[in-house]
Amino acid sequence: MFQGKIKADFIKTIIDATAILVDEAKFRLTGDGIYGRTVDPAHVGMIDFKLNKEAFDEYNCQEETEIGVDLDKLKSTLKIAASEDLVNLEYNKDEGRLIVTIGNLKRKLALLDTTEMADTKIPSLDLPAEIVVPTVELWQAIRAAEAISDHITLIADKDGFQMIAEGDTDVVELKLSKEQLYSLKCEERVRSMFPLDYLSDMIKVARGKSDEITINLGNDYPVRLSFEMAGGYIKIVYLLAPRIESE
Amino acid sequence: MFQGKIKADFIKTIIDATAILVDEAKFRLTGDGIYGRTVDPAHVGMIDFKLNKEAFDEYNCQEETEIGVDLDKLKSTLKIAASEDLVNLEYNKDEGRLIVTIGNLKRKLALLDTTEMADTKIPSLDLPAEIVVPTVELWQAIRAAEAISDHITLIADKDGFQMIAEGDTDVVELKLSKEQLYSLKCEERVRSMFPLDYLSDMIKVARGKSDEITINLGNDYPVRLSFEMAGGYIKIVYLLAPRIESE
Amino acid sequence: MFQGKIKADFIKTIIDATAILVDEAKFRLTGDGIYGRTVDPAHVGMIDFKLNKEAFDEYNCQEETEIGVDLDKLKSTLKIAASEDLVNLEYNKDEGRLIVTIGNLKRKLALLDTTEMADTKIPSLDLPAEIVVPTVELWQAIRAAEAISDHITLIADKDGFQMIAEGDTDVVELKLSKEQLYSLKCEERVRSMFPLDYLSDMIKVARGKSDEITINLGNDYPVRLSFEMAGGYIKIVYLLAPRIESE
Repeated sequence: MFQGKIKADFIKTIIDATAILVDEAKFRLTGDGIYGRTVDPAHVGMIDFKLNKEAFDEYNCQEETEIGVDLDKLKSTLKIAASEDLVNLEYNKDEGRLIVTIGNLKRKLALLDTTEMADTKIPSLDLPAEIVVPTVELWQAIRAAEAISDHITLIADKDGFQMIAEGDTDVVELKLSKEQLYSLKCEERVRSMFPLDYLSDMIKVARGKSDEITINLGNDYPVRLSFEMAGGYIKIVYLLAPRIESE
Repeated sequence: MFQGKIKADFIKTIIDATAILVDEAKFRLTGDGIYGRTVDPAHVGMIDFKLNKEAFDEYNCQEETEIGVDLDKLKSTLKIAASEDLVNLEYNKDEGRLIVTIGNLKRKLALLDTTEMADTKIPSLDLPAEIVVPTVELWQAIRAAEAISDHITLIADKDGFQMIAEGDTDVVELKLSKEQLYSLKCEERVRSMFPLDYLSDMIKVARGKSDEITINLGNDYPVRLSFEMAGGYIKIVYLLAPRIESE
Repeated sequence: MFQGKIKADFIKTIIDATAILVDEAKFRLTGDGIYGRTVDPAHVGMIDFKLNKEAFDEYNCQEETEIGVDLDKLKSTLKIAASEDLVNLEYNKDEGRLIVTIGNLKRKLALLDTTEMADTKIPSLDLPAEIVVPTVELWQAIRAAEAISDHITLIADKDGFQMIAEGDTDVVELKLSKEQLYSLKCEERVRSMFPLDYLSDMIKVARGKSDEITINLGNDYPVRLSFEMAGGYIKIVYLLAPRIESE
């Protein structure tokens, strides 16, 4: 049996963050909090989130269990809650449905069979550079880049961080010096190119929720984007596969 | 000859309230105010409104008369008025057009021939239960129900009021105890099911205009929804036919 | 070499003002400011704008030059700037691209070849009446007229100004007396009819930017609409050809 009460904004963010990659996801309910790891069908993007029990106003989980959630359904259920409203979640193995209560309104949601849903394994990546960037700068660069291209190159060296998108005739470029970053650890120059649509969806999730995004970057290698909310009790990590530059 | 000056918000509400059921409607201009009764083409929903002359800033009606209004046209005319703007309405049998003046702008609206528009009779209904419900609760239940079903069941008994919508796998349920209602008169349990689209349109009209809706309910019988605005000088009553439950 | 720094709102307005008529335009960069004159492909509407160097926070132009701009591209580039943000524009003949910098973000925009873009000549018009009208009144009349017609007649005489649109059955009329106008110079009655879509686009540009629009009007003759922003340092003039009334 599981029961938790949480601010609508928090649970909505987690659902939205997962829904950019998949329609259905498996969540693990544990004594510490809720965990989710999912990869998109094309195996390009991956999410690994932790929703600590401290992010909840109430949290009770007697027995660790897994539930399969139709994300669209849960999103539509949460739509009626204002971001500060409290949402009560209840799950009981025998009933087999997730009961979502918002104010006086209760919705019983059928769950999905998790036996067919594969476990997602997080690859171990050796990413030499770590850059902590203001979310708003990333978001503006992404928006500007989308007007001219469908991919973008991330570059870091010891002096700063750069994003470059090249279209047929135009170029969009974001340049942040070491001083304009929250932090920069980078000994040798690294550079990888990524699909803009995925990157845009991922950064959009952080926008307005977290001031900074930590980027772990390598050479023609996946990128790791991570950010926190709710005083660190909610942590979202994205991995995104590179596009190979055809130069 | 008729002339009246009224807050845009009031007349807009009346037009919107009628337009959820029909495209054209007959309004009766009398010494007391404006009256309208209309049933939708499928005979599922009915409106009966009274716009007392006290809701107007100016009101002059020498002779009782009926006008036929194209609601879409009147809505588009009123769109340019802010909700607190005053709208002047003028009708003169000889001219045959409704003159709508907002600020320095005048629109002369052709009217419809009312001779072919049938009179709508209000059926006399014996509805044993009366429940006065916060509009916001009804609206949230409607919105949540729409995600899973196209009909909803209203239930009242001596202890409270309930709305239940059942989809293929999911259930949405609003439960309000006697204490959470503005008022409850119900001796025996009553229960009727209604089409969600009509009910949604009706409750949407009240939303933000009236804090409470009075529901008169029976067993597999039409429901009566009523609410007031402008200190009671505007009164809107809806009747809605039940859907027969196939159990 | 040209370099200028300007409030995003100012440059956006100029681009939007031109984009209602054409997709591509030629701008003249001079020691005094930026000038543009463009006629739409149907030769119905014309814009003539001046963006004085005083409207800029920084302005450097060593050598007069012309650039050809893809307006949609520039609009999409400016979208990420808030209206109070400063936009830096740089152009260097050798590079051949316009460099737009907003915050830490730089976009290099390919320019169009201006050799094939014809110069637009402003016709000399003898327009006997001049009326200065509150923008908001014009806008409301336009919006109301659009619901019933695709053309509108502007009339001025010594007592006031009028706009009339006639549909099949309905009439929209704006009447402003001399006292309701900012100014009126009109000895003999003048009257011309115009296409609503163009007029609507032109007045929309002024809306919220300039409280008043100066209208120069004749008989079945083009109209001249002009308005200013930024303390007069930005001046936009539109000319619009009449529709001949078929009476």
